[in-house]
Amino acid sequence: MRREDCTFWIEIDIRWGDMDSQSHVNNAVYFTYCEQARVDFLHSVGIRGKFGAEQGPMLVSASCDFKRQLTYPGKVDVGLYVEEMGRSSCRLRYGIFRKGADEPVALGTSVNAWVDYRESRAIPLPDDVRATLTKYRIKVTAAELRQP
Amino acid sequence: MRREDCTFWIEIDIRWGDMDSQSHVNNAVYFTYCEQARVDFLHSVGIRGKFGAEQGPMLVSASCDFKRQLTYPGKVDVGLYVEEMGRSSCRLRYGIFRKGADEPVALGTSVNAWVDYRESRAIPLPDDVRATLTKYRIKVTAAELRQP
Amino acid sequence: MRREDCTFWIEIDIRWGDMDSQSHVNNAVYFTYCEQARVDFLHSVGIRGKFGAEQGPMLVSASCDFKRQLTYPGKVDVGLYVEEMGRSSCRLRYGIFRKGADEPVALGTSVNAWVDYRESRAIPLPDDVRATLTKYRIKVTAAELRQP
Amino acid sequence: MRREDCTFWIEIDIRWGDMDSQSHVNNAVYFTYCEQARVDFLHSVGIRGKFGAEQGPMLVSASCDFKRQLTYPGKVDVGLYVEEMGRSSCRLRYGIFRKGADEPVALGTSVNAWVDYRESRAIPLPDDVRATLTKYRIKVTAAELRQP
Repeated sequence: MRREDCTFWIEIDIRWGDMDSQSHVNNAVYFTYCEQARVDFLHSVGIRGKFGAEQGPMLVSASCDFKRQLTYPGKVDVGLYVEEMGRSSCRLRYGIFRKGADEPVALGTSVNAWVDYRESRAIPLPDDVRATLTKYRIKVTAAELRQP
Repeated sequence: MRREDCTFWIEIDIRWGDMDSQSHVNNAVYFTYCEQARVDFLHSVGIRGKFGAEQGPMLVSASCDFKRQLTYPGKVDVGLYVEEMGRSSCRLRYGIFRKGADEPVALGTSVNAWVDYRESRAIPLPDDVRATLTKYRIKVTAAELRQP
Repeated sequence: MRREDCTFWIEIDIRWGDMDSQSHVNNAVYFTYCEQARVDFLHSVGIRGKFGAEQGPMLVSASCDFKRQLTYPGKVDVGLYVEEMGRSSCRLRYGIFRKGADEPVALGTSVNAWVDYRESRAIPLPDDVRATLTKYRIKVTAAELRQP
Repeated sequence: MRREDCTFWIEIDIRWGDMDSQSHVNNAVYFTYCEQARVDFLHSVGIRGKFGAEQGPMLVSASCDFKRQLTYPGKVDVGLYVEEMGRSSCRLRYGIFRKGADEPVALGTSVNAWVDYRESRAIPLPDDVRATLTKYRIKVTAAELRQP
């Protein structure tokens, strides 16, 4: 993943307490970083809370490849883009980067279903949610589109 | 994953604070549950700390499929088995089960490299570590071995 | 605080992830341990959830004196007793003890108001809650009562 | 506590995951916020890590009064000042404020001993540490000094 692939960014301050007894950021906290990017994204584009307690996203799976270690003090940029959309779910990809670095520290994914919370079952992505997510798909440059 | 596949088990009390504002156990905490199983496993079989600060396991990747929600109060059984061993890494699989339930609440994986901590590079799994991990591979029954 | 002062007990497994980069249990986690004892207590005696979303306890203050360090692996016993009851609040005291040890690792307190959640204001403790809390006041032995 | 009492400030982004199932920031996380201010302070003034693994601060006690609730999304300012210094310890006070608000959301304290880590015993505050801490005592205005 390259920084330019990402379509939404947040900055996170690494907290001292994010580190575990190996003195680097604990693996579970990387998922909290991705969650924070996802929630900020859903909040920022107006999806979060729009449908109240009736329907909304639910996490189906999450993964992370840990490339480098993180330590306090420092900040990271967490970027994401929408990789795929299905009828009732989408897949997001995340990149965690140290400030000023182009190589990601970690790469994450999540699959999020769109769910009727009262009946606990997946339902089709509403049209406006789909339209919003489409705007945040991976950026492809004109040069890349021209490639055979 | 079936319960009988697992070769090592721990029990975890769900803490009230493991839940997030959606009132179920937060996704990042599932990784803490798998981490707890992994650390308990490494501790129990004598791998943890055996090589001091010189070499040991390092988490390369982690994933989780969330099948059902968990809430306080309750306990879960977390089982694991060694799925694959390479020259300098192994892959573990995890199942999180509610007490008395056969269907897992969540399925996890992790890839752990064996690392020279001083040089931060992967090195071959020591023979005794490999021998220990081999004992904790997935259980296969005699009946399954006889199947064509 | 002596073990025999406590009127309600839980056992907590120290998680590896409870430790911070100083390789002992992080200070904030002691408050999670006390919270767990408090929630288990309220759940056990039937106060938790009894009044739905309308009224219930709210934490007003919390404190902890750290006497000794805790490390994984291990278990702790967390005991509590009701120290004082006011018109609309009560004060709890907590002791965290290593298994088999009589000297506490840490001593905590909390003040919990009884609150009308919809109006966010303290209201008098309901009679049955007061009666229940009274049963969990510090234990005083007959011998102590006889002392001048 | 007034904002103008504080002599050191940090800003913290409230994470969605800081909230518990009551949908406000969990009580233990307030201690993480104070810890973050303390560690940033010790780092910023050059005390953190200066004495390596030999000596340094150790948390003896912590407390917090919760005045108002916090929710994601939002930021808080966490201020602190040195309230008292003893021979081998100091007491810090913390104020957590919502952006733009003068009334604190929460007030915290901590007592930190200066400790010989190898012998686990309190030792006198080194002169330069004492000199640094003195600079961060509560701010007192000239007008206040003139008051009888």
